[in-house]
This record gives sequence, structure tokens and C-alpha cells, in this order.
Amino acid sequence: MLERGFLFEEFRTRITRLQAAMADAGETALLLTSQVDIFYTTGFLTRFWESPARPWFVIVPAQGDPIAVIPSIGADLMSKTWLTDIRTWDAPFPGDDGVSLLSQTLAGIVPETGTIGLPMGLETHLRMPLADYHQLTKNLAPRRFVDATNTVQRTREIKSESEVAKIRAACAVADRTFARIQDFAAEGRTHAEVFRDFQRTLLEEGADWVSYTAGGAGPGGYGDVISPATDQRLTAGDILMLDTGAVRDGYFCDFDRNYAITHADDAAKRAYEQLFHATDHVLDTLKPGHTASDVHAMFVDSLTKQGATPGGGRLGHGLGITLTEWPSFTPHDHTELRAGMVLTLEPGVEIAPGLFQVHEENIVLRDTGPELLSSRAPASLPILR
Amino acid sequence: MLERGFLFEEFRTRITRLQAAMADAGETALLLTSQVDIFYTTGFLTRFWESPARPWFVIVPAQGDPIAVIPSIGADLMSKTWLTDIRTWDAPFPGDDGVSLLSQTLAGIVPETGTIGLPMGLETHLRMPLADYHQLTKNLAPRRFVDATNTVQRTREIKSESEVAKIRAACAVADRTFARIQDFAAEGRTHAEVFRDFQRTLLEEGADWVSYTAGGAGPGGYGDVISPATDQRLTAGDILMLDTGAVRDGYFCDFDRNYAITHADDAAKRAYEQLFHATDHVLDTLKPGHTASDVHAMFVDSLTKQGATPGGGRLGHGLGITLTEWPSFTPHDHTELRAGMVLTLEPGVEIAPGLFQVHEENIVLRDTGPELLSSRAPASLPILR
Repeated sequence: MLERGFLFEEFRTRITRLQAAMADAGETALLLTSQVDIFYTTGFLTRFWESPARPWFVIVPAQGDPIAVIPSIGADLMSKTWLTDIRTWDAPFPGDDGVSLLSQTLAGIVPETGTIGLPMGLETHLRMPLADYHQLTKNLAPRRFVDATNTVQRTREIKSESEVAKIRAACAVADRTFARIQDFAAEGRTHAEVFRDFQRTLLEEGADWVSYTAGGAGPGGYGDVISPATDQRLTAGDILMLDTGAVRDGYFCDFDRNYAITHADDAAKRAYEQLFHATDHVLDTLKPGHTASDVHAMFVDSLTKQGATPGGGRLGHGLGITLTEWPSFTPHDHTELRAGMVLTLEPGVEIAPGLFQVHEENIVLRDTGPELLSSRAPASLPILR
Repeated sequence: MLERGFLFEEFRTRITRLQAAMADAGETALLLTSQVDIFYTTGFLTRFWESPARPWFVIVPAQGDPIAVIPSIGADLMSKTWLTDIRTWDAPFPGDDGVSLLSQTLAGIVPETGTIGLPMGLETHLRMPLADYHQLTKNLAPRRFVDATNTVQRTREIKSESEVAKIRAACAVADRTFARIQDFAAEGRTHAEVFRDFQRTLLEEGADWVSYTAGGAGPGGYGDVISPATDQRLTAGDILMLDTGAVRDGYFCDFDRNYAITHADDAAKRAYEQLFHATDHVLDTLKPGHTASDVHAMFVDSLTKQGATPGGGRLGHGLGITLTEWPSFTPHDHTELRAGMVLTLEPGVEIAPGLFQVHEENIVLRDTGPELLSSRAPASLPILR
């Protein structure tokens, strides 16, 4: 196992698995445009995606190695990956920002009767200008573009042991950071100070960067968990929740922890224990073959039996090279859960209208059931004095 | 001027300007899907966009206030913005992830003869599943979808004084961080340690989060500037470059600084002075009415006259609510530069094949010429001893 990156063999295995899925779906080539799909197939890791200026493309042919069609500014870094066929243009180039080069490349490997798979479904985006995509489809006609969401998602959702190790390392960063909560969260500190120091501590504990932090704090619970921090101060009786997607070597953790400031009311303590117990129930019950909607039902059953009101949207999701991956633990998602999937268990309770508590752990699903990647939260609500 | 956020009046002005541009382009409504376009029109600021699970929509009608069509998880935060018409669905919902609600909403304000503008051009992406977009165009036929890149970009690229103040505040965060370079960069430290502490210091100095850091270091210069940091150690004679897009209140800075580790060779010192001088030349020369390609030519002329080889891709770009915005200082981009644009000046020199130095400042263009938003770099290469 490498401390950083992967052996080239890992990528060969991924491509072999993708190509098998492509063959099943009748896709002659796969066109990938997103940061994560390109990272997954090549190992190309950079924060440069933060700039929307340039499109990037990787083509997975039916046989053989992927081809990168990328802005020349990325050639040096891409040449350090396992890819050898790297074609570049001088982006950004108004009028033809890689479209001709991409069209020629695809035309060279996909016969006119062939199909080009592109993720078009739930949780995917096309990361190239829409007008350029329209031009591409014209250039390549009569070749057809088809939805390859299943090809990509069914392959990516099963993690290798090397990937699991990366996610475990990201979780360990957050574990060590939460263990230092007393360093940065206390009565009287502002939410903004706490959020800032939370990020600083994540970096100190080994995050390469901190792509996501969220949280909430308020008397007995919190309402909204996606707002930026304000200058409001933590007050006795507040429940503070901190949630993070810290990144190490390109892989995310995504879990939260709850704390009471100086003391907690009974409702908050009870909600914590209900969430803890519901999570234990899923940890004990979940097996490969269950569906995403089954997990939702397990949480709802356990919480309802305990007299709690389930709340907070979906109750967990996939995790890996993005903060959230499919499937979603909702009543509507019937994706089968398989060994090797990395998932978050994220039940919420609505303590009173608009007042929530949310609990989260990260697991990898094994043949025998869940294996925790985050260290299990304490069994009762921790109090910060 | 508010320390955080904007007065509602600011958004009304933005919408009035957008609606004037829409009228000129014959667009009956504007459909916005990206984090930045939605932040620009509403003030909706959250890191939750890191999750690709859910699409978000804002519609700007020909007259009147925008309408948000968003996942219910965002309703609470969106209700704190100036928007009052907020329509939600329970996302993610396989099979109809907001498409019906969005279709109904658009059908209610766009007559069948109308057109719906959507950014489709350079530096834009459609942040919704492509299959859902295809369904949307079918649902709304015979209404036509047209490219509204110009409408959005020509409006957003002229910053208000409140926006300039936000970018100045982000630049000040980086200025204070670079002033503390001796705290975290020195001979013997690894690149990874320096990058990590650079981010920590940015947070300490007031960044809300650090969306981008990049850099390079090597003997006499550096090659690639988009790679993640490695465990390589800084060595005497290295030139270290650190570049950041730190975010404060939703607005970015984007500039770099160069340092020599213990000493510098003459070629590195000369390159630094050539870049500094070329930047001074543009600071003295640039006026509204010049084009983006003119700025490229100014840099190339100045560097060439000094005997340097210009290098490093585009030589600057727009800046604001993304790390990089249009236009690009390349020979191919003939966008007219106007007062109120915030820009980076980013000349590069190729010292030897594959060995670069890049210099960067942030400015706002005034009627009289550039006003610096970053504190001007030192006139000669700083040495870290």
C-alpha cells in the first residue's frame, strides 16, 4: 500500500472493470469530463479544477488504456500518471476549446455505428460548455451519445482495499481533530471562530485540504446545517454539531459529532441516545443485499420505536472521492448495497419543529456487515465545560 | 458597507442589470444552475455545493424578482436571502429530481413563443444532469433554450464597489499571510508542510475557507504549478512560489509570491525583476478600452524587450466569485476591458526549457487605470534565510 497515490495496477483494474461494464451496456467508448471521474481513471490530482476556465477530457476505449485530451497546462502533471496517450491544446481558446481535438480523437476510436457513453443521470454533471457538447455531437454524428451513469457509478461504488485505506486515513484525520474539540469549542466563542479553528486543526492533523465543513449550534439543537458560520457566540445549553469533509490524498471522510455546551437539556440527551441506538441497530442489521431504501426504513423503524421523529432529509449516502456519492438512503432509492461500498450512516431526529440533531458515522460494507471507518461516537452526548 | 453579505439593494441592482442585458438579447427568462450564478443573484452562500447530489435552480424573469427552485434542505438558508418566491422538492428524487417543478415554474412565466437563456459558452457548465436538461427542453417545447453566456458574463464582470471591497478583504488575508512567510517556509521543511501551514495561516488571518492553494519549488525556478505538494524538502537555492485563492464572504483573491531559499542564482533574480518590471508596465499603461489580448501583448512586449522568454499560459484573467473568471489574457481573447472589472496580472517567464517563474497581482480597473487590490510584491526577489 502506498502512503500517497496508487500503484498503476490499481488503475488497470479500474479500467478493466469499467470496460466490462461498458461491454455489458454496449458502449464503444466512455467520455469523462468531471474532476472525480478523471481522478478515478488516471490518478490526476490537483486543486486546479477550482478554476472553471478549462474543460478536461478522458476517453476510456472499449479496449486498451485511456486517452487524455487536456489543456497543455496539465500535460506535465498528467505525464506523471499511468497514462501515456496525452493530447493537449492551448486552453482557453475561444471558438474551439478542445472540441476539434476531442472530436478527432473520439472519431479515431469509435466507428460510425458506435456509441459514446457519458454520465447523464442523477448526481452527474457535464463539465464542459453545453454549446461545445452540442458541437461535439454534430461533429461525431451518426455516432450516438448514451447515458453511462450506471457504467460509472456501479464501478466506482465498489471500493478497492487501497481506496478503503485512503478513506480510513481521512476519517482518522477527523477523529484526531474531534479528540481536540476542547482546544477550540467553548462557551463564549463565536461560531465563526470555532469553524475556523476546526479547519485549522483538521490541517494540523493531516488533512491535505478541507473541502467541506458545516455545522450548527443552538439551544437544545439546530435548524439548518448548511449555513456558513456567523459571529453568534456559543451559549450554555447549546448543542454544537460539527461536520467535515476533510481530504487526504484525494479521498474524503464525511461525519459529524455533537457536543453540549456546559450542559444539555433532557430532550437533547434523549435525541442523542436515540440516534446512537438507531445507528447501532443499522450497524448490527445491515448486510449486502439490502437496498438503500432498506437502510432508510431501518433508521425510521428504530427511531419511531424509540418515540423519536426521524428528520433531516436523506439518512446517509455513498462516500469516496466526492463528499457525497450515490446511493441515497431515502424511501425512493432502491440501489442494492454490495460488499465494498463505503457509506455514511446519518440519521436525524426532529426534536421539535425545526429543531434537529444529526448523527453520522462512516462505514465500509463487508460480506459480514458494516465495518466502521470513523471511530464510533461516544454513547452519550459529550459535554464541553 | 456590510462586513458580511450585501444589502438587498445590491441584488436588486444586479437583477436590473441582468434584465436589461436579457432584454437586449431577447431572452424571456434566465435559468441559472451554477453555485456562482446563484450566489450572485441571491446571496445564497454555502459550502454544501461540494455535494454533487442535488441540482439547484434560480430563474430570473424578464421583470420582477428571481424565483428559487431548490431542494428542501436549502429552504431555510434561502429564506434568509432577499428572495421570497422559493419552491422546493425533496431531493434527491430518482426519476424526477426537480424537473417537473422547474418545468411548471418556467412554463408559468415564459410564453410558448419565448426563449430561455442558459449559459452555454466558454467557462460555463450546466450543473444539472444532462438527461434532466433534455427532459426539460422537451417539457418546455416549443420554447427555445438559447446561449446566455454574454448576458451573465457581461453583467457579472463589472463589480460593484461592495464587491470590490469583498475582494480587497480577501486579498488582505493573503497579504497578511505572505507577511508571515518566515513562520512556515524555510530550508529543510517539506513542500507538504509548507502548503499545510500556508493554509492554516490563511485561516488564522481571516479566510473563511481556503478553496485553492498551489505552488512550486525547485532549484532556480519551478516547472509545473498545479501539482499537490510532496514530501520533498526545500533546499538552498530553491525558488518557492505560493499561490492562493482564499475565500472571504464568498469572494476570492488570487495571487502568488516568490521567495528564494537562503540564496538565489542570477537568472532567478533577473526573472523576478523582469516580471516585476513587466507588471509595472501594465499597471502604468492599461486603461479601459484595451482588450484582453492587448494586455497579453503588453506583457510579451515588455518581457521580450528585457530579453526574457514569456511563458506560463495565459497571463492573467478575471477574478471575483470564482478563482478565475473571464476574460483571459491570451492572444485570442478580444474582450474589451471596462472600468469595474477585477483582474489578475499574471506574467510568467521561462528561464530555461521547463523552468518557470510566475508573478501575480490583483487589480480593479478604474477609469484612470489599474488600482491594486493586492499589496504590491517587493521589487526584488525576497530571500528566506
